[in-house]
Amino acid sequence: MLYPENSEFKARVEAFKSRMPCDFAIICHLRDIYYLAGTAQPSMLLVPKDGDPTIFFRMHLEKGEKETWIGDIRQGGVKEICELIKGGSLVGIEKDVLPVSIYESILKRIGGDVETTDVTPAILLTRMVKSRYEITMMEEAARISNAGHKMVRKALVDGISEIELATEVEYAMRKAGHNGFIHIRRWDGFLHYELIASGENLYTPSGFPGATITGVGLSRAFSYGPSSRKIMRGDLVMVDIGVPYRGYHSDEARMYVVGSPDKTQIERYSILLEIYEKVIPMMKPGNKVNDVYGAAFEVIEEHGYSDWFMGYQQFGVSYLGHGIGIEMNEMPLVTPGVDIILEEGITIALEPKLIVPGWGGVDLEDTFLITDNGAKFLTYTGRDLAEV
Amino acid sequence: MLYPENSEFKARVEAFKSRMPCDFAIICHLRDIYYLAGTAQPSMLLVPKDGDPTIFFRMHLEKGEKETWIGDIRQGGVKEICELIKGGSLVGIEKDVLPVSIYESILKRIGGDVETTDVTPAILLTRMVKSRYEITMMEEAARISNAGHKMVRKALVDGISEIELATEVEYAMRKAGHNGFIHIRRWDGFLHYELIASGENLYTPSGFPGATITGVGLSRAFSYGPSSRKIMRGDLVMVDIGVPYRGYHSDEARMYVVGSPDKTQIERYSILLEIYEKVIPMMKPGNKVNDVYGAAFEVIEEHGYSDWFMGYQQFGVSYLGHGIGIEMNEMPLVTPGVDIILEEGITIALEPKLIVPGWGGVDLEDTFLITDNGAKFLTYTGRDLAEV
Repeated sequence: MLYPENSEFKARVEAFKSRMPCDFAIICHLRDIYYLAGTAQPSMLLVPKDGDPTIFFRMHLEKGEKETWIGDIRQGGVKEICELIKGGSLVGIEKDVLPVSIYESILKRIGGDVETTDVTPAILLTRMVKSRYEITMMEEAARISNAGHKMVRKALVDGISEIELATEVEYAMRKAGHNGFIHIRRWDGFLHYELIASGENLYTPSGFPGATITGVGLSRAFSYGPSSRKIMRGDLVMVDIGVPYRGYHSDEARMYVVGSPDKTQIERYSILLEIYEKVIPMMKPGNKVNDVYGAAFEVIEEHGYSDWFMGYQQFGVSYLGHGIGIEMNEMPLVTPGVDIILEEGITIALEPKLIVPGWGGVDLEDTFLITDNGAKFLTYTGRDLAEV
Repeated sequence: MLYPENSEFKARVEAFKSRMPCDFAIICHLRDIYYLAGTAQPSMLLVPKDGDPTIFFRMHLEKGEKETWIGDIRQGGVKEICELIKGGSLVGIEKDVLPVSIYESILKRIGGDVETTDVTPAILLTRMVKSRYEITMMEEAARISNAGHKMVRKALVDGISEIELATEVEYAMRKAGHNGFIHIRRWDGFLHYELIASGENLYTPSGFPGATITGVGLSRAFSYGPSSRKIMRGDLVMVDIGVPYRGYHSDEARMYVVGSPDKTQIERYSILLEIYEKVIPMMKPGNKVNDVYGAAFEVIEEHGYSDWFMGYQQFGVSYLGHGIGIEMNEMPLVTPGVDIILEEGITIALEPKLIVPGWGGVDLEDTFLITDNGAKFLTYTGRDLAEV
C-alpha cells in the first residue's frame, strides 16, 4: 500500500479535533499537513473544532487535489484562510515551528481580539500511536538502516576517516532506498544521514542543539556529524543512522571497535545492554514512560555512572529516548517528567549513552514498537560491540 | 585559511550595527550567529546598536569560547539575554525564521512595552558582499559541484532512474568534499544534495515551496528531488547541484540528453545561453539587479516564451536568480522589484529556465562573483547541452 486509506486520514483528523484546545487550528507545518491531509504540496490546512477541514493550496491545486482526501480544496494562503475564522475565536497554531512573520500576518488578517494557542502538543499526541501502514514504512526504514550498518562492518578499517566511512554508508543506504532527507522537529536542528563519532570525538561537545554524542563535524560552520578524524586501531566508533522512507523514520545506533575491544570498553558497553534487558520488558501497554526512564537510571546508579549518563557533566539530560515517526523526534519523550501511559502502536527510539570525558563514550539505539505482547524491535542489526 | 580573521568578524558586526533598525538585536538563527560570531554552537547573540556584542552559550561555553572572537561570553539563553535589554527598547529579531514559541518567551521576559522589528533584511544586506575568505570557500564548493556534474556524464545511461543517478552523484561529491547539509533560509524548505528532473518531471509541478523545476521526489511525503522515474533515450535531464563547503554554498544546474538532442531541445536550450550572453556583461558594479532581470526577460519576449519563463503558467515567478553564500538563498533576489546596485564581492546564482507543459523544460544555472572587471563564473562545468 503506497499511502494510507482515506478512512485512516479521516480518523486522524477526528482524533486531532478531539484534542484541539481551540476553535480553529491553522496548520502550516508540512509534516503535520502530510499527516492529516495526505499531501505535502505547499499548503495550509484549516481545521475547525466543529466542522470539516479546508485545505488551501498556494500553487498547484490540481496536483494537491490528486493527493489529498480532503473535500474542501481551495486556492489561497493566509489571507483566504483567515477569512474563514470568526472574530473572537481561539486560534491554534504550531508555535514550536511557525515563524513570527507568518504568525504576525495571521494576527493582522484575523484582526480584532484574536487569541492564539499552541496546537503542536495535540498534533504530536495524535501522531504518537501508529497504524499498520505507518509501521510498515518504519520497517522499511529499518531495513535500509541495516544496510548502512552492514556497510560499516565492511568499510571500517584502521586509518579510514569518519567522513570517508560516512560516504560509504550513505552510498549503501541510498542504494537500499534511503529517501535522502531526515525530518527533525526543531527549527534549529538538522541531521546528516548518519552521525559518526570516534575516539575523543565521543566526548567532545558538539554543536547539535540537543546534547549527547553526535560527532563534531567538518568545521565550526556545522559542528556535528562525521569529521575528518582518522579512525585508529583500538578506537571506539559510534555510528548513529537515521533513515527516512516515504515520510517515516528509523533510528539505530551501534558501537564498533577497530580490532579487539579492551576490558573497559566491553564493561561500559555492557551497561547499555543491561539497561535494555531491564527496560524492554517494561515497555508494554499500561506502563508509564517515566518508569521506563527510572528503571534505566537505576541500572546506571548501581554502576556509579550517573554523572556520565546521557550527556556531558552538567549538560547531561534526563532522557532515554524519544517517539519517532513522521519526524525523528516525536512524543513520547522518555524522561522523568512524562507520565504518558504506553499503548499498542507507540513507536520509541531508546538510546542509552555513557559519555566519559577523557575516555570516550558508548551508545546503543533501537527503534521499538509497543505491541500487546511487549516491545518489538523494528531495527535489527546485531547488538554486539562489533569488532571490525 | 580555515576561518576568517577576527578583524573580518569585527567589520561584519560593525556593518550590521550600522544597518540595525533597532536598539538591540537578538540573533538566534545559527547561520547568522556563525557569520557574526564565528561559532555555530547552540547560542544566542545580543548586539546593541551602541556597544559591543555579548554571546550566550546554552551549553558548552568552553567550546564556544575557543571558536568565537567575541569578548563578552556568558552562559545562558533567553532569560539571561533579556536581562540586558532596557525597557522601552526596540528589539530586532529574525522574523522570517524565529518560531513563535521563542518570540513569546522573549516578549514575556522583557515585559513592559517592548516593540519588535525584523532584523533579517539588515543581516542579509550585510552578508551580501563577500570577502576574499568567503569567495575561496565558494570556489571550493564549485570544485565539488564540478565533480558531481562529471559523474552525471559518466553515470547517466539509458534506463537509469533519477534516484540511481542521484546516488552516484552524491557519492562522487561526498568523496570530493561535499559537507553533507545544504542550508536554505526558509522555515518550510529543505534541499537534497541535488535536484533531478527528467522527461515529464521537468514540467510536473513539484512540492517545493518555491516554484520552478525541482523534480517530483520519491513520494507524496516529500515531493521534490530525484524520483524513481527511469530515464530513457531522448529524454532531457536537469541536474541542479547544491554544495555546502565549510559553511558556504555553490549552485550549478546543467541539462543533459541521453543520445542526440532534437531540434526543439537545442533551440529552447540555446535561449538560456542567449540570456547568459545578454545579461552577464550587465552584471558589473554600478548596474542594478532589476535591469539584469529586465534584460533576460527581453530575450524571452523576443522568442515569444514569456508564458513559460521561470515557472508553470500562472505560478511562474518574475525571477532570474538569487544571492548565495552562507545560505543557498541570500540577497539580492534578481527580480523586477529589487533595485539593489551591484558591487564588487556580491555573489549571485543565475538560473534562467523555461518550463513548457506537455513538452519539458530547460534550465541552466551558475554561481557568479561580481568583480570590478565584471561577472566571473565561480562554477565552471561545460555549458553545452551535454549528450551522454
